[in-house]
Amino acid sequence: MINTVAIQGVKGSFHHIVSQEFFEKPVDIIECMTFDRVVEALINGECDAAIMALENSIAGSIIPNYAMIDNNHLHIVGEHYLDIQHNLMALPSQRIEDIKEVYSHPMALLQCKRFFRGYPHIKLVEDKDTAEVADRIQKHKLKHIGAIASVLAAEIFELDVLAHSIQTIKHNETRFAVVKRTNSEVSESEINKASIKFEADHKRGSLATILNVMSDCKLNLTKIQSLPIIETPWKYAFFVDVTFDAYADFLKAKSLIEIMSPSFKLLGEYKNAKL
Amino acid sequence: MINTVAIQGVKGSFHHIVSQEFFEKPVDIIECMTFDRVVEALINGECDAAIMALENSIAGSIIPNYAMIDNNHLHIVGEHYLDIQHNLMALPSQRIEDIKEVYSHPMALLQCKRFFRGYPHIKLVEDKDTAEVADRIQKHKLKHIGAIASVLAAEIFELDVLAHSIQTIKHNETRFAVVKRTNSEVSESEINKASIKFEADHKRGSLATILNVMSDCKLNLTKIQSLPIIETPWKYAFFVDVTFDAYADFLKAKSLIEIMSPSFKLLGEYKNAKL
Repeated sequence: MINTVAIQGVKGSFHHIVSQEFFEKPVDIIECMTFDRVVEALINGECDAAIMALENSIAGSIIPNYAMIDNNHLHIVGEHYLDIQHNLMALPSQRIEDIKEVYSHPMALLQCKRFFRGYPHIKLVEDKDTAEVADRIQKHKLKHIGAIASVLAAEIFELDVLAHSIQTIKHNETRFAVVKRTNSEVSESEINKASIKFEADHKRGSLATILNVMSDCKLNLTKIQSLPIIETPWKYAFFVDVTFDAYADFLKAKSLIEIMSPSFKLLGEYKNAKL
Repeated sequence: MINTVAIQGVKGSFHHIVSQEFFEKPVDIIECMTFDRVVEALINGECDAAIMALENSIAGSIIPNYAMIDNNHLHIVGEHYLDIQHNLMALPSQRIEDIKEVYSHPMALLQCKRFFRGYPHIKLVEDKDTAEVADRIQKHKLKHIGAIASVLAAEIFELDVLAHSIQTIKHNETRFAVVKRTNSEVSESEINKASIKFEADHKRGSLATILNVMSDCKLNLTKIQSLPIIETPWKYAFFVDVTFDAYADFLKAKSLIEIMSPSFKLLGEYKNAKL
């Protein structure tokens, strides 16, 4: 049973939305200001699961989060996709002409830069979190201040949305992992996706050989990311996601790659959220 | 001839160090506060080349920079590796006990977090750039303030280094691209590395088939990065770097992949900096 989930950010953050959408029953959340703290909460047993962004369609993989899952031997037990929409919000009855400063996370400010070119009177100020600013505006009844955050944050902190979907690139899909201390409890018949990590030599064709095995075993590759292994030149680690119809096919490929690669690690097996 | 080079950051920044190390003769630099501005300077003809970080061993690829090179049809004509070392610096005669606040780029602060745990009296404040803070400290003779930046920045702005290499992960190698508006002027006999982009279907084995061709043509893969194509589900673009001994081998592989992939693009061919 999942009762408590650690998220990066506060209530109203995108990680909070994922915690609402992914689990069938309502869960309690632990608000964490960093991913380090999210992982700490999970390892210490303060929660049953954690939610961590893994990649987005603008910036690609969030490698430090992959590394934290890998180094702490955590297990990916599920995935969830969210289309990140940024909205400008303020206290009710404030108009956009009244707003003098907008506070938000540097990434959110960057993604909404073009919108604010139309409002040169507004000063953009970097802050720690998107939703936390919305909370602060309501708590201290801050006039002339705007936040960039989710519609959920506007609802929770009772702010008015002055402009919807103000991000420059309209479609910014982010993939989140649901992570636990122990392996998946998903039944084998439901598993149709896996995240693995393996190393391959710089030797010509060594990656191609492993991908051939995957292809022969009827696995589809949905993501591949090479990462140089620090302090070991000419050796590479690969983070790979694969989907499959039959779990037996994956098990067969796994046994073969375990023999072929000097290091093979299963980061998680779970249900594909993209079907 | 390369006379003027656009860099991200100011004098003393890591991009500035690369501009000093890569070119045989001294070059003038254009200081840019964003990568957008770097690319603009290059496209407008304000400079002959630009330097852009592409990836580092901690965080992986800087996908937005790859996208800017791709979308603006720029050409990678060289690469350079730099081991990023962060140093704490202040006005001469200041001791670490005198420092009350340290200003730097959020990424530098993050990478040095562990060092500052030993100095809880120091407040860390996010700023735009690493070297720019060093400049400001000297210009306004700011006491009790520290910067985190390169040794070059300490030299240029005449600050004393209070602690060397204070980053948590000691080895953080960053790969930079030298980019131009037109294709490489490197002679064919010197070219032994290339950056390419191609698309492949979600269809089982389509990537493996292309990697097999590369392997058959004696290319070594040094980097691979998949990126979902926005608005086109189940299709993927791959950024791939390959090295080779003979340029003719690369040309052969290129002709084959051009036939096999719905889209093939050469981002640049250049001399491998890792030999």
